[in-house]
Amino acid sequence: MKIKNQIDKETIKKVISMGDRVVADILKLRNPKVDVPLRTLSNVKFNPKKKIIEMGDEKQERAYFNLSMAKRFMQTFLVASQIYDKLLKEGKTTSIRDLFYMCKVPVAPKSAEEAFSEQSESDPIIEDLEVTVDALREELHVHADNKGALVGELTVIDSGDTIDGRRMGSGGWAVPSIVEENVIQFKKCDAKYILLVEKAAMWRRLNEDKYWQRHKCILIHGQGQPPRGVRRLLSRMVNELKLPLFVLVDNDPWGYYIYSVVKQGSINLAYESERMAVPQARFIGLSSFDMEKFDLPSNVALRLKDEDTDRAKQLLEYPWFQKKEWQKEIKHMLHLGVKLELEALSNKMLTFATDVYLPKKMKDQDWLD
Amino acid sequence: MKIKNQIDKETIKKVISMGDRVVADILKLRNPKVDVPLRTLSNVKFNPKKKIIEMGDEKQERAYFNLSMAKRFMQTFLVASQIYDKLLKEGKTTSIRDLFYMCKVPVAPKSAEEAFSEQSESDPIIEDLEVTVDALREELHVHADNKGALVGELTVIDSGDTIDGRRMGSGGWAVPSIVEENVIQFKKCDAKYILLVEKAAMWRRLNEDKYWQRHKCILIHGQGQPPRGVRRLLSRMVNELKLPLFVLVDNDPWGYYIYSVVKQGSINLAYESERMAVPQARFIGLSSFDMEKFDLPSNVALRLKDEDTDRAKQLLEYPWFQKKEWQKEIKHMLHLGVKLELEALSNKMLTFATDVYLPKKMKDQDWLD
Repeated sequence: MKIKNQIDKETIKKVISMGDRVVADILKLRNPKVDVPLRTLSNVKFNPKKKIIEMGDEKQERAYFNLSMAKRFMQTFLVASQIYDKLLKEGKTTSIRDLFYMCKVPVAPKSAEEAFSEQSESDPIIEDLEVTVDALREELHVHADNKGALVGELTVIDSGDTIDGRRMGSGGWAVPSIVEENVIQFKKCDAKYILLVEKAAMWRRLNEDKYWQRHKCILIHGQGQPPRGVRRLLSRMVNELKLPLFVLVDNDPWGYYIYSVVKQGSINLAYESERMAVPQARFIGLSSFDMEKFDLPSNVALRLKDEDTDRAKQLLEYPWFQKKEWQKEIKHMLHLGVKLELEALSNKMLTFATDVYLPKKMKDQDWLD
Repeated sequence: MKIKNQIDKETIKKVISMGDRVVADILKLRNPKVDVPLRTLSNVKFNPKKKIIEMGDEKQERAYFNLSMAKRFMQTFLVASQIYDKLLKEGKTTSIRDLFYMCKVPVAPKSAEEAFSEQSESDPIIEDLEVTVDALREELHVHADNKGALVGELTVIDSGDTIDGRRMGSGGWAVPSIVEENVIQFKKCDAKYILLVEKAAMWRRLNEDKYWQRHKCILIHGQGQPPRGVRRLLSRMVNELKLPLFVLVDNDPWGYYIYSVVKQGSINLAYESERMAVPQARFIGLSSFDMEKFDLPSNVALRLKDEDTDRAKQLLEYPWFQKKEWQKEIKHMLHLGVKLELEALSNKMLTFATDVYLPKKMKDQDWLD
């Protein structure tokens, strides 16, 4: 065994105890079962106190002696055993696609039937496991996609190597998918805040202008909707380094939604909110009021499409967009009938975001919570 | 002016000379025009000597006094002037979307007509400019998307910062989109070869196993079809560091195609082959013969879909796949009727690629050219 750290020890304990309960059932000649927390919309709610989307307490029994459940029961333990044996015990990590291949085995020696024939079967089992043993997939040593990059006033240790965010050139440090404490530790931090930018292009602009140096911040992007690695890193930085987080996105319903997922989590993956959501996150723009505030030419605005309008109307109904400032923000976008991309700021002047927009926004504390 | 280096000086000279020719036309009371090399299939051919896909010599005249060309003539010079004025002269870079917004201006003061209303109009103009002035978009300071990461036995200087590929943790150095000599320089290289991996997940596996350290190489991925930045970096590393390049992809027609674009360029962007293609690139796998060679269980192979079969048959016709080894390789895949993803190697053992597959392939020199 190559178990190096406390997190892995705890995760292993959790996985083993799931097995122990089943063994206990068997020894008592009971039908072996696991209780899997329900990952359905009905079992998800917004917690207005914690300001995150949370899972409720509903669970579903998954039993062995049950024709409709036996296969999923077997699959659950197969995935768990591969994670325990090949990943946790060996100190190795892998992707969800890899895990599918690792579990693509005959259900019994020489059987023609496979335990899994499509990845669409193994992915939900991974999610079941996460909620059942109460460990993020990253703690189970399973990667999601990785996207996004970081530069700025922070030094991190990544797998023993020192990464100085102040000396990462134009490319930056590629944010890995697994950023738990056993892999990533924070060292020297001179940042006053974190700025998450939706688009790589705007991140490059701000990095080229050394915005992070002039304004002492950490500059990070997630290439659109930030992947799990970026979200988890944001959550850890906010909590451990006590830094405020500002989110800069396109002014369209998708930009609002990216912000909202960073802030309170998503409905689909509500069980991860506790570890990934950043309820302190602030929306710095683009706002539907920016066109007037910054006197942007009307031709850089793009007309809202039907899907934009429909999506915006849905957002107006979400509990976490009920604050009157947010209703005003979204309704103003609908009223104007246009959206505004981050690139629109370049029309006036290439460095408009760096030299005018962000400094003014920060100075005026012109953001939404 | 903030022109820092020789490359920018030469690019500026090229852009100015395009303008000079038009001014000369005007002074001689001639119809101003530019000759734009034709970017159509008819003007593209495979050069079997250089082993790259090249553009031919056909050009199209774009004249000012011509009803069907006047708008594109104006657009060409508007884009060129923005690139000259806001990017090259200022030492700044931007994205193709940004450039669209920078050019989204009225055709004349107070006119309601815009020079550009969609990015689909400005993108081809950028490509026209690249071929007309003979400068890659990166030399014109225009970014493409950036994807991909690098670790391994190489130190690079990125915008003045030293990036040691041996100390980049699990994340790696995010490969920037612009990797020309004025941004990226190579320093200490202890690598014996470069390994380009199609998928981020396999790259992480090999990085976690420190494959690059054990086998003294540079490990890079491009998240699927490598973006321009990765391709240009590969070409520079192969030519300047005199390293061989090995390409590891899925065994399917898309994997073959990724290899072929890296090696000889693509039909769509033939004009960039000279600077981006790596005719020395070798295909190390996955090969359609690997299943037998490495005794992989048949259940990890996925049945070819119709689109796979059709695509494979197209590849068989390409001039650069005419070598008998390649015909054998592709026909064997069609004969087996299955494809094999990189992740399939994990079924036997998580570190199979690191410990068995790649070492054996390299030792046996079991690759295709």
